[in-house]
Amino acid sequence: MSSRKELANAIRALAMDAVEAAKSGHPGMPMGMADIAEVLWNDFLRHNPGNPKWSNRDRFVLSNGHGSMLLYALLHLSGYALPMDELKHFRQLHSKTAGHPEASETPGVETTTGPLGQGLANAVGMALAEKVLAARFNRDGFEIVDHNTFVFLGDGCLMEGISHEAASLAGTFGLGKLVAVWDDNGISIDGEVEGWFTDDTPARFEAYGWNVIRAVDGHDPVAVKQAFEAALAQSKKPTLICAKTVIGFGAPNKQGKESSHGSPLGKDEVAAARARLGWNHDAFVIPDEIYAAWNAKDEGARRESAWNALFARYREAQPALASEFERRQAGTLPEEFAAHAEAWIAGLQAEGPAVASRKASQMALDAFGPLLPELIGGSADLAGSNLTIWKGSRDVNSNDASANYIHYGVREFGMSAIANGLALHGGFIPYDATFLVFSDYARNAVRMSALIPTRAIHVYTHDSIGLGEDGPTHQPVEHLASLRYIPNNDVWRPCDAVESAVAWKRAIERSNGPSCLVFSRQTLVHQPRDAVQVGSIARGAYVLSDPPSAKFDVILMATGSEVEIAMQAMRMLADQGVGARVVSMPCTSVFDAQPVEYREGVLPSWCRRRVAVEAGITDFWRKYVGLDGDVIGLDSFGASAPAEALYQHFGITAEEVVERVKALA
Amino acid sequence: MSSRKELANAIRALAMDAVEAAKSGHPGMPMGMADIAEVLWNDFLRHNPGNPKWSNRDRFVLSNGHGSMLLYALLHLSGYALPMDELKHFRQLHSKTAGHPEASETPGVETTTGPLGQGLANAVGMALAEKVLAARFNRDGFEIVDHNTFVFLGDGCLMEGISHEAASLAGTFGLGKLVAVWDDNGISIDGEVEGWFTDDTPARFEAYGWNVIRAVDGHDPVAVKQAFEAALAQSKKPTLICAKTVIGFGAPNKQGKESSHGSPLGKDEVAAARARLGWNHDAFVIPDEIYAAWNAKDEGARRESAWNALFARYREAQPALASEFERRQAGTLPEEFAAHAEAWIAGLQAEGPAVASRKASQMALDAFGPLLPELIGGSADLAGSNLTIWKGSRDVNSNDASANYIHYGVREFGMSAIANGLALHGGFIPYDATFLVFSDYARNAVRMSALIPTRAIHVYTHDSIGLGEDGPTHQPVEHLASLRYIPNNDVWRPCDAVESAVAWKRAIERSNGPSCLVFSRQTLVHQPRDAVQVGSIARGAYVLSDPPSAKFDVILMATGSEVEIAMQAMRMLADQGVGARVVSMPCTSVFDAQPVEYREGVLPSWCRRRVAVEAGITDFWRKYVGLDGDVIGLDSFGASAPAEALYQHFGITAEEVVERVKALA
Repeated sequence: MSSRKELANAIRALAMDAVEAAKSGHPGMPMGMADIAEVLWNDFLRHNPGNPKWSNRDRFVLSNGHGSMLLYALLHLSGYALPMDELKHFRQLHSKTAGHPEASETPGVETTTGPLGQGLANAVGMALAEKVLAARFNRDGFEIVDHNTFVFLGDGCLMEGISHEAASLAGTFGLGKLVAVWDDNGISIDGEVEGWFTDDTPARFEAYGWNVIRAVDGHDPVAVKQAFEAALAQSKKPTLICAKTVIGFGAPNKQGKESSHGSPLGKDEVAAARARLGWNHDAFVIPDEIYAAWNAKDEGARRESAWNALFARYREAQPALASEFERRQAGTLPEEFAAHAEAWIAGLQAEGPAVASRKASQMALDAFGPLLPELIGGSADLAGSNLTIWKGSRDVNSNDASANYIHYGVREFGMSAIANGLALHGGFIPYDATFLVFSDYARNAVRMSALIPTRAIHVYTHDSIGLGEDGPTHQPVEHLASLRYIPNNDVWRPCDAVESAVAWKRAIERSNGPSCLVFSRQTLVHQPRDAVQVGSIARGAYVLSDPPSAKFDVILMATGSEVEIAMQAMRMLADQGVGARVVSMPCTSVFDAQPVEYREGVLPSWCRRRVAVEAGITDFWRKYVGLDGDVIGLDSFGASAPAEALYQHFGITAEEVVERVKALA
Repeated sequence: MSSRKELANAIRALAMDAVEAAKSGHPGMPMGMADIAEVLWNDFLRHNPGNPKWSNRDRFVLSNGHGSMLLYALLHLSGYALPMDELKHFRQLHSKTAGHPEASETPGVETTTGPLGQGLANAVGMALAEKVLAARFNRDGFEIVDHNTFVFLGDGCLMEGISHEAASLAGTFGLGKLVAVWDDNGISIDGEVEGWFTDDTPARFEAYGWNVIRAVDGHDPVAVKQAFEAALAQSKKPTLICAKTVIGFGAPNKQGKESSHGSPLGKDEVAAARARLGWNHDAFVIPDEIYAAWNAKDEGARRESAWNALFARYREAQPALASEFERRQAGTLPEEFAAHAEAWIAGLQAEGPAVASRKASQMALDAFGPLLPELIGGSADLAGSNLTIWKGSRDVNSNDASANYIHYGVREFGMSAIANGLALHGGFIPYDATFLVFSDYARNAVRMSALIPTRAIHVYTHDSIGLGEDGPTHQPVEHLASLRYIPNNDVWRPCDAVESAVAWKRAIERSNGPSCLVFSRQTLVHQPRDAVQVGSIARGAYVLSDPPSAKFDVILMATGSEVEIAMQAMRMLADQGVGARVVSMPCTSVFDAQPVEYREGVLPSWCRRRVAVEAGITDFWRKYVGLDGDVIGLDSFGASAPAEALYQHFGITAEEVVERVKALA
């Protein structure tokens, strides 16, 4: 029987060897946290290596993702589909062992981490998902949703502001099944943290309402085990285990120093560490008895089987709930959703309400929400401005079985990273919201939505200088373009209620990445469309208006509130004998992905007389208007004044469009 | 003699009246914090309304900037150049009373606030500036730098993650002259905060090493005064005063409710509040005796005169220090700087070192730093990667008189907002640093650098997939374009050591806004240039190479590490008889601001065969290549692999450039 130390040393050896082979990477953290990870994975973690997607598995998140070799070693040793060959190709092209853990690449990796602090927020989202899902689906004797969420974090995660936002909310929500382990090794990249990190972290987390277990020796398996037992023994508060560790534990000359953090130890130090640890095996060699002691496949299979049996009985007792649960876990929408949404959109086109698109967004939520119990929404303390509360919204604090609304407080970054965690958990389609300008605060979490990827819907209202008096601190200018440039991120900026509803439908239906839905504060005009045009909205751009003759010699393109400006300009130009096509472009990335025939049909190459109008950075539009066209927008910061005054002041008017058209060659 | 209540009610009345006139704004906070502000401004704040730029004034920051009418009322009443007519035009075009306070618009506004939490971080930067400047300049009997920094903040500021980063550092630095007042009114926009903000905030700040004064009645001037006295009586720790207030105090039907937060109270409620407060004056009318009691002009003038007399004696005793102090306060560079830098750059061109541009950045710091004691640097725990420590760097924790380096820890957002505070204070040119991808974390602070504006220099290394194995979480793709789209923000991405030095010089010389300096992890080739070309780097783009015949029919443009790829392609094309011009474009915004003749000289309109190369989002470059050209870059996320493998994998190679050129019409 292998000793606990030997089991932990297997992690250390793999971390040293893989980093050495890659000639880059972070050995220090895996070597420091190996003992803790060994106890957690062998004594507490309820998972099934044979099925990384089993819905009721415990979640394990490595927020200090640079220590990726810890996770890869754990996955490999416990029996996930991550063979030794992948570890040998750590950090190489096409391997499953990227420099930082990537959920889309590696079986068993719950979320993509590396950007510090976000893993903690993802874990908060997962633990919240578990709690809300349990309230919805569990019945007496049927605890079909009942798992823990564990997260490892380092000093860096705790310094990041997002740790405050996420930990504060976890405390407020009383996430008793969330257990965080702080790798308190006293070292960050710049050296000993005492010069820049002097928080009393245990006291800080107690101030958030957490259960804090102090001063655990992270290299004493008995102490670590007791800490996890104590954490799991209570159910009202999240727990922080403060584990004192030595970074690079076992490397005789580098342990306890920043030199072990982010570089290979070097051949000699690796050999010395092997001697110190008593690990007498060649690189990438794990003895069979060590594998046997780590292997969790049989126990995992048994565990999932037992759950499957429980679920089979649950299905008999609660057939409707069981099928909803399975549908939501699979991430498929109700069969009737598409037809229902299309009918509602057609009705909206006929009805033609002139409302702010933020209001149209709320109308879409009211229309679609009743079919979608998986929708879980929230706003960063702007519910009344973002209009994110719909008729079916119920506060998650209520423990109501239909709880689906989160008051995130003023925590944009934490919100969006928690939303990623909700989506990753399964069972939910999260939407969150703030003012468009404050997408900045959440920006890397939006990027992570696209990279992981998650079906997260980020709602951004107050989308331009059209918000008026709050002024330039609150007026987005560069944000539309900047969000569009995040790969795999769809940004919708609808021009009226109908486009708003289509944007929501597309965002809900998009299962392989996030959508940003960008809405106005101010009222927008309804645009007339035939059924074909209504159907074309979902293609990202379409011809909203052509001259009666169908002949045009200029194309006007616009989004959102500026579409009506383009329409006005089109009418003024018509009066002057100039035929203009108007193209509404609510989502440029979706349009760019259309077949070339469709794109050519909307923006024919022969027509180089093109003018784009959007109340934001103009350069973005050069991709559509080229060097021969023109763009009307805003390349400076805005100003504080009523919206109409600002549009005049910055020259974003139909008159200006007409002038620019006439100035084109 | 007016009572304190009457003085405070003057603020309340002005806030109600201005919001009413504007038909938008936030009356609740000014009415709630009026009593606290009255005590602070009349009993403690050492300022001079006649000279808002007096260097030794106390700084006052309104981090909860939506309550801008509090600040405007204070400035107006105490005698700043903000006449009543400006208050009557609150939130109107061209007024000095924007919806949120703007430092560039309004005399006496220390920083632009509204994006929550950043005002606190700005204030931390100001208090840190005071401490470091005092260590440099004060001598026995000459406390020429000796002022306090006060900051008001709301629940929203405290929920934001940046409050954690900034407060934690303030505690570590022991900023004893920083006094924060928490407007503990229990209300945020969504309503009573207990559903989403349950932190024990006093305990949290004690965990940061702050002095915390709990449970102060914010409507009792005696209690408030005692709290400020206690705060100022100690000098080792920053102080948080927890002031219980009633939002919208005085509005009988709306006080204590979120309805008083962000909307006009309405005519009837304003009248009722006047009655309740005993304020029997018409809208925008302040009785003379109230003005007289508030007026701080005489006392301010006396205070500054006394300081001027002290400084005159200081100049006699310490002439060199005195002139350095005045130069740094004025924000002018040493006379010899420009010539010294140019000579050094010329030498670098001759020497031709092939180094990573992050290393070139450090070389520039070593070359320029000794002339610039105002440079104050730091990194978010990546000093050894960003290479931000130069030979003259001394830790600010040391209290060394030449202290100029800040270990910010892993706190990107706090770092950049603190840098804004350092710049706003005067006496410093701050630079900060992280990986380019983590500019996301700091993004709104970078935006604020541009909006305020501040001479902040944001250093971003590891600028592309060229960073290699750390993978897509760490590889910027959209960041260059996104940062360039922030108005008034110069983004430099140099191609070698010479361009790196020019970028640093330009950033240091730019006094009206920030610069982002973007550097590579990997080694870059040195490019040959004549003296004219070296001089043209500062114009943002220039012709790096033309065919010997000076005839070309294609333009290749590139930045950073891709310039050498363009040069290789140029040579390959030359072998095939195709003449190509190579344009290096280290800073597109600076190039865009050149006279049209210069721009036309670099990118002549007749040449539409243009190919841009940059290892990032391609669409940005359409502004230069139009619809007829082509762009080689990266429109997806990167991958984890060695850099060379990634460039091949993503097709960012000279061979690809050649193929694309040949495919052009």
